[in-house]
Amino acid sequence: MVIFTFAMFGRSLAPTVRRLFSSHAKIERSSFASVTAADIEHFKNVCSGGVLTDAEEIAPFNSDWLKKYHGNSKLVLRPKTTQQVSDILKYCNERRLAVVPQGGNTGLVGGSVPVHDEIILSTGMMNQIESFDAVSGIVVCQAGCILENLDRHVESFGYMMPLDLGAKGSCQIGGNASTNAGGLRLLRYGSLHGSILGVEAVLADGTIIDCLSTMRKDNTGYDLKQLFIGSEGTLGVITRLSVLTPPRPAAINVAMVACESFEAVQKTFVQARRHLGEILSAVEFLDRGSLDMVLSQQPQTTDPLSTNSPYYVLIETAGSNADHDMEKLETYLSDVMESGHVVDGTVAQDAAQAKKLFGIREDITLALSQRGYVYKYDVSIPIDDYYKIVEDTRERLAKHDAIVVGYGHLGDCNMHLNISTLAYDDGVMKDLEPYVFEWTAERRGSISAEHGIGTHKPEFLHLSKSLPAIDMMRSIKQTLDPNGILNPYKASHDACPDSVIYSFLS
Amino acid sequence: MVIFTFAMFGRSLAPTVRRLFSSHAKIERSSFASVTAADIEHFKNVCSGGVLTDAEEIAPFNSDWLKKYHGNSKLVLRPKTTQQVSDILKYCNERRLAVVPQGGNTGLVGGSVPVHDEIILSTGMMNQIESFDAVSGIVVCQAGCILENLDRHVESFGYMMPLDLGAKGSCQIGGNASTNAGGLRLLRYGSLHGSILGVEAVLADGTIIDCLSTMRKDNTGYDLKQLFIGSEGTLGVITRLSVLTPPRPAAINVAMVACESFEAVQKTFVQARRHLGEILSAVEFLDRGSLDMVLSQQPQTTDPLSTNSPYYVLIETAGSNADHDMEKLETYLSDVMESGHVVDGTVAQDAAQAKKLFGIREDITLALSQRGYVYKYDVSIPIDDYYKIVEDTRERLAKHDAIVVGYGHLGDCNMHLNISTLAYDDGVMKDLEPYVFEWTAERRGSISAEHGIGTHKPEFLHLSKSLPAIDMMRSIKQTLDPNGILNPYKASHDACPDSVIYSFLS
Repeated sequence: MVIFTFAMFGRSLAPTVRRLFSSHAKIERSSFASVTAADIEHFKNVCSGGVLTDAEEIAPFNSDWLKKYHGNSKLVLRPKTTQQVSDILKYCNERRLAVVPQGGNTGLVGGSVPVHDEIILSTGMMNQIESFDAVSGIVVCQAGCILENLDRHVESFGYMMPLDLGAKGSCQIGGNASTNAGGLRLLRYGSLHGSILGVEAVLADGTIIDCLSTMRKDNTGYDLKQLFIGSEGTLGVITRLSVLTPPRPAAINVAMVACESFEAVQKTFVQARRHLGEILSAVEFLDRGSLDMVLSQQPQTTDPLSTNSPYYVLIETAGSNADHDMEKLETYLSDVMESGHVVDGTVAQDAAQAKKLFGIREDITLALSQRGYVYKYDVSIPIDDYYKIVEDTRERLAKHDAIVVGYGHLGDCNMHLNISTLAYDDGVMKDLEPYVFEWTAERRGSISAEHGIGTHKPEFLHLSKSLPAIDMMRSIKQTLDPNGILNPYKASHDACPDSVIYSFLS
Repeated sequence: MVIFTFAMFGRSLAPTVRRLFSSHAKIERSSFASVTAADIEHFKNVCSGGVLTDAEEIAPFNSDWLKKYHGNSKLVLRPKTTQQVSDILKYCNERRLAVVPQGGNTGLVGGSVPVHDEIILSTGMMNQIESFDAVSGIVVCQAGCILENLDRHVESFGYMMPLDLGAKGSCQIGGNASTNAGGLRLLRYGSLHGSILGVEAVLADGTIIDCLSTMRKDNTGYDLKQLFIGSEGTLGVITRLSVLTPPRPAAINVAMVACESFEAVQKTFVQARRHLGEILSAVEFLDRGSLDMVLSQQPQTTDPLSTNSPYYVLIETAGSNADHDMEKLETYLSDVMESGHVVDGTVAQDAAQAKKLFGIREDITLALSQRGYVYKYDVSIPIDDYYKIVEDTRERLAKHDAIVVGYGHLGDCNMHLNISTLAYDDGVMKDLEPYVFEWTAERRGSISAEHGIGTHKPEFLHLSKSLPAIDMMRSIKQTLDPNGILNPYKASHDACPDSVIYSFLS
């Protein structure tokens, strides 16, 4: 049994780092080949200027941005073209060299970091925006384009990227696609399975699969691109994409409201969908504990409301007419205040205030990490039980010195359950896992709403996927990557050929 | 080479029927087993009351609603539960009996009709709506629920189904999913790959794959459900689904405008996206020929505009506030009139007028069929060339007595190219195919935007899918349905195991 990893960043990294090194050490290395000098020479011919072997240069690629997962790769390849990716994989497949595809390396579950000495295939140099059609709003680009750069590019034509997340300044669109990134705007613009119109990907044997359609409607055979979206680089390396971008809204409004019961939170949400309909762009949730965490760790932040309530909801609208939107928002707020669902609230008067209100929600993660250790869970739960997981976990941990808070994307039923302790505590961990995952599974929730499986959760995959479904994953993996060279030990571990399934699965 | 089928309905069906019978006869039957009396006895035990063997009762299942495709099945099975579907398929797989899954049988490309004597597995009795969550707007139901019934059900809670198409009174949600149906609202609510949250499907060997998530966010391993969406029943039979439904808009407005050039049509569309943004729900296109076709065939219809223009655009808005929406629409219309993009226009004053305006667009198909023979093409084309396919086809057919018209979902770049002749003409057909498909492929369009491949277009699949992509389809088909019993000779013919690929593919 692997000792399980836990989330921690900010202060005191050293103990975590040591702990996780030891964790990874328990995942047995499969019988892949090791990189030789001849291999490196070969790769220098394939992508000259894109071969890193210097330990110091490689270091940032060997661990994630939270310094939580650490690998031991000796080689980073940075191709610039699809053909180079194809040449690299063909060679690796023939030589049985394992490969980790890596985008912006901003994931939270260790999916883009090597576990042992896998070759890191970084898409960072594949950063060309190839075209933008200002009539249809469709952008075509390489996988390594940074999300924020794409957003700025399409902004100049009056459009926006359909996804937004905290890591937008570093994450790459290919990584977003491979992990099916969610984020704040999913409520409005849907998942990447809908927004991504086309994908070009390279299979483990170097075959280039060109499904780079730029058409909104394309019913010609199986929708193969969907297999590459969300499979964490285990079935192929995405090299180019076409994405449908929505028109950029002219007006953005943000309101924060307080509720006395979770039932009132639900009604506030339902009324928001009804009143704000087409202009609703985000519905975020935080409990009092989350707000207190920010207020206690960040003295510069003040409580935006005078009422001390157990629940808060952030509502964002995005529309094409500021007056219309404000009128709708005001009507909505009057309604929920009059009906008693909401006991207090505030509306941002300008962009700066809006940013400040949203900032509180975004700062929760940082504040938690500032306080000490954090055990992080990213789950989807049916709306009726959305907050119950926080209450039940709080009760379960009553004997520990732990603060249990809940926040997240209410509009998507996506709960970020976080447990804060001053120091890491094995007893807390034992009370949390598999409890949290089993609790979620019992309610047909998802044990990974948006972060993915990566190295963190493969052991619990069966709680959100039936065994026949895992078998089907395994068949598909076996068919497309028979040697299992693509991102071994990860999301698909259960779907890997037996030869590369690591010990704790047996 | 198979003689190609063509679209025709309304009058004079007989010649078409005969022609198509002979067409199908050229597809060689694969070496599947034939249904025996013992098989029928077995199925009577599996789903009592759901076994049809009477020729007259079976007849409607053996041909499509346009009476264009005809099969020769001797057995229709109508299971009521997933377990029954599983039992049926397990048996069929062991006995090597071929199966055609059939929903509402409203497709246009012969995907749900047997080619030979395949067993018809009808989902019509699987029509239970299992749950609706009025907070999240998520409906869970069996595959055989009729789209319009689902829409009425969720309407009572203030929601609507995210797709709408002409066949809504008969088509089933499982069939919609299997064919990735598009329709009028895709512009606003996106494709089913985004709206369908979960799928339960049965594989060829009877394995039940339960991916019936009701969560908007679920990143736990491969998104297997996507493989069943749009694969025309060749990888599995969808038995249950969960679908995210949007709130039903309080206000609907419809306008029809006339343009003098296709460049003006494009600008009218771009301005509609900009001005109407979040309330835009459909942008439909018809050329003068399409309008004339309706006016000539349906004397009760009058020209809604006084200007005789070459191009018309129908704009629909759907929003939560009627006053706001009308104000936006009026501002938009003033803008496109003043800038000269639009030379004439009319706005429906009430629901009846709106229905009438949209009715013209919807009646084009019927009017064409009333005139005589119709050769129908459903393609996606990049917006710049959207109308050029009509002009080029018109020029190519100049020597024939043929009327070439174009209409479709402009907002999705989906063109319905239709060619009307008084009688079927082999010369016209020869000038149309493969010309239209090749023309589309050269511009990276899609040879099937929304109708699918079915029996009609497998020969041309390679024009919209690269050979490695077709190989990948084939591998997936081989993995999931090694005996090729599911919907043989169809969409996936190129993806079928060699043993069931029919002659003209070799």
